[in-house]
Amino acid sequence: MRILAADVPNHLDQQIEVSGWVHRVRELGQVNFVLLRDRSGMIQIVYNDKIDFTPETVVTVKGTVKANAKAPGGAEVHPSETIVLARADQNLPVQVNQDPEKYPLDVLFDNRFLSLRMPKLRAIFQLQSALLRYLSEFMHSERFFEMKTTKLVGSGAEGGTGLFSVEYFENKVYLAQSPQLYKQGMIATGLERVFEISHAYRAEKHDTPRHINEYVSFDVEMAFIDSELDLIDFERRLLDHVFTQVANNDGALLELWGATVPAPGAMLKAPIIGHDEAKDLIGKLTGKKVFEINPEGERTLSDWALSEYGVDLVFINDWPRKKRPFYTFPTADGTKTHSYDLIFRGLEITSGGRRINDFAMLSDAVPKFGMTLEGLGSYPSIFQYGCPPHGGFAIGIERLTQKILGLANVKEASPFPRDRKRISP
Amino acid sequence: MRILAADVPNHLDQQIEVSGWVHRVRELGQVNFVLLRDRSGMIQIVYNDKIDFTPETVVTVKGTVKANAKAPGGAEVHPSETIVLARADQNLPVQVNQDPEKYPLDVLFDNRFLSLRMPKLRAIFQLQSALLRYLSEFMHSERFFEMKTTKLVGSGAEGGTGLFSVEYFENKVYLAQSPQLYKQGMIATGLERVFEISHAYRAEKHDTPRHINEYVSFDVEMAFIDSELDLIDFERRLLDHVFTQVANNDGALLELWGATVPAPGAMLKAPIIGHDEAKDLIGKLTGKKVFEINPEGERTLSDWALSEYGVDLVFINDWPRKKRPFYTFPTADGTKTHSYDLIFRGLEITSGGRRINDFAMLSDAVPKFGMTLEGLGSYPSIFQYGCPPHGGFAIGIERLTQKILGLANVKEASPFPRDRKRISP
Repeated sequence: MRILAADVPNHLDQQIEVSGWVHRVRELGQVNFVLLRDRSGMIQIVYNDKIDFTPETVVTVKGTVKANAKAPGGAEVHPSETIVLARADQNLPVQVNQDPEKYPLDVLFDNRFLSLRMPKLRAIFQLQSALLRYLSEFMHSERFFEMKTTKLVGSGAEGGTGLFSVEYFENKVYLAQSPQLYKQGMIATGLERVFEISHAYRAEKHDTPRHINEYVSFDVEMAFIDSELDLIDFERRLLDHVFTQVANNDGALLELWGATVPAPGAMLKAPIIGHDEAKDLIGKLTGKKVFEINPEGERTLSDWALSEYGVDLVFINDWPRKKRPFYTFPTADGTKTHSYDLIFRGLEITSGGRRINDFAMLSDAVPKFGMTLEGLGSYPSIFQYGCPPHGGFAIGIERLTQKILGLANVKEASPFPRDRKRISP
Repeated sequence: MRILAADVPNHLDQQIEVSGWVHRVRELGQVNFVLLRDRSGMIQIVYNDKIDFTPETVVTVKGTVKANAKAPGGAEVHPSETIVLARADQNLPVQVNQDPEKYPLDVLFDNRFLSLRMPKLRAIFQLQSALLRYLSEFMHSERFFEMKTTKLVGSGAEGGTGLFSVEYFENKVYLAQSPQLYKQGMIATGLERVFEISHAYRAEKHDTPRHINEYVSFDVEMAFIDSELDLIDFERRLLDHVFTQVANNDGALLELWGATVPAPGAMLKAPIIGHDEAKDLIGKLTGKKVFEINPEGERTLSDWALSEYGVDLVFINDWPRKKRPFYTFPTADGTKTHSYDLIFRGLEITSGGRRINDFAMLSDAVPKFGMTLEGLGSYPSIFQYGCPPHGGFAIGIERLTQKILGLANVKEASPFPRDRKRISP
């Protein structure tokens, strides 16, 4: 009966069986060491004879556990039998027991099935799994309905640019940029509060550390809100739950990256600043003229929030109407909107806001953005049959992962990233 | 402060506020009734004056709660103020307060944002949300890692047929039929146990009540298994958890459809029968010659399992090699495989099995299926660097939903189904 590496030190002087990958082989002649890696961690195996397998080979080892203060975890296995389950090629294009920083990103991505074995890179996706869990848990506990809506759409909610086309039998359809149409439609069916975690696609040609063409979008939509402030309040509680759970359960993953999350409760104090006030503040803090809130400005605002409020997240609301999508609910004077972005350590991780829910208001808004109701497909029909006030937001899962761990490039937070040139593995 | 309809009877003789959709209007002259619908249920509002709004209008009602044994829930609201939040068109293409069976499926799908307001149709997706929750909860509690892998692939794991193509910048890629490559690759990275809930695509032209072209696949893969029996054991426990949770929490949804789930513990007794024995049994039970296990045979087996084992699910294992994908692990004599299907009430909801994990064995198997290693893209590389024994399975979320509620067509279990002709809304 197999036990996990992390559990070995609890079986001192007992016969046990472990299975995993050979992480490192150290041959000193008389005594030889193997570091065995499994999903729980590592354990040292001590051989008195020659070792006939190379790193990354999968083995099962039966033996006795002995205390050794110098071994990882304070114990090691003295083997009685070693069974090779699957041999690894001797020439590995990536050395799993090396630091990933030794390799260019492209090499790590080209050899993804091997590079993801590196404990530090694997930790990214262990954390991402935990984030997916904490986000879902919170949403279900708040009685939101989880939905899975089609990703094959007739046109984009944002107006049809930046879409990938799909040959769909006799038709051409597009990969959805977001579930915007469907999440708004679903709250109007009476589910009232919905969320979805699914892939989304942007056919953007630029290649920056902030962009990927296929990403995982955590989407939320809720009915009977008054303004974006209700959404901000909800997102504060959501992320406070996530950060608190990460701090409680995933400390070892954070440690591998030298990362921290905001302390429990800190997220609830994340400040809200209006778009124009944010520009003024950036100008005051940097001494530069500010034309728009660019990445540098976003970093300035995060630093300001950290020093003034003890949390490196900041909400920017009151965005000018022309900077937001057509469906954003305008303020009374029509110049601004009930919308917001959330900046986390210098990067926008959320965009959200109240939506227009009145058919006449929508009909009035659409031409102002150079669009037509007809061009929006099924979208306007949502508002013909009684649609309550509502709004929502989305969090990019890769960006959230990236900023928690401090990854330089968002692509590192996608197990198999897709960009303009990369379509494998 | 708004309260939910279901909570109204707890506020007898108090001032309350409710918001929702006008489900039904009944005007008797002196006294007029409105049935108000929200996400929690329905509540009756009693007006002494004329009603100036039509069904599906969204309203907020302030008033006093009065006991009335004849009203749904035993209480009704005597309004002091009614605020119209969003009016509905008077001509509704689908009457939300009618039975969905009155409409052809196509009409319900064409007017999906309206038909999903019907409580019986909405219940399908309330149940589906609960299923997604219970499945994820169980997997995380069993320490599986949740992953989100790319849906844009170079070729299909099943050999390249039945794929939708995507124009991806200068390249042509395909929508993934399943995360087969990636889930096998991920267990080999040392995560060992992974799951994913994502969309999958099949460009199959046939249009049957069992098929949709875009579906949600719940995929599981685990390392260090011996045979398909380990997977069956795991899936039994997984589905027992799901059915037990549904029975405990979602009785009202089941009731709308006159549906039941297997009793707690029943799933653990779901029988396993070999493929050839299953054919013989079907022949014996039906008195007909059986050439292959067709839908009628699957129903016969489910009925047999119900009468013999008290559960209408049956595992069929030991499939002949030529009926399974190339990557399926063969039995010692090479004629059969360590694979299985799970039949639920006459429909296959799972296909699974142990996979070949040895590069030499894979190289030997591939040509037998008329394929080449080169044609498999990145897939063979998983097995070059030490891949442990492993296997997995997948459950179609729409099929699981369909069979629990007894829906005639699997498309009814997709909020926005996609088939050969349907690409909107």
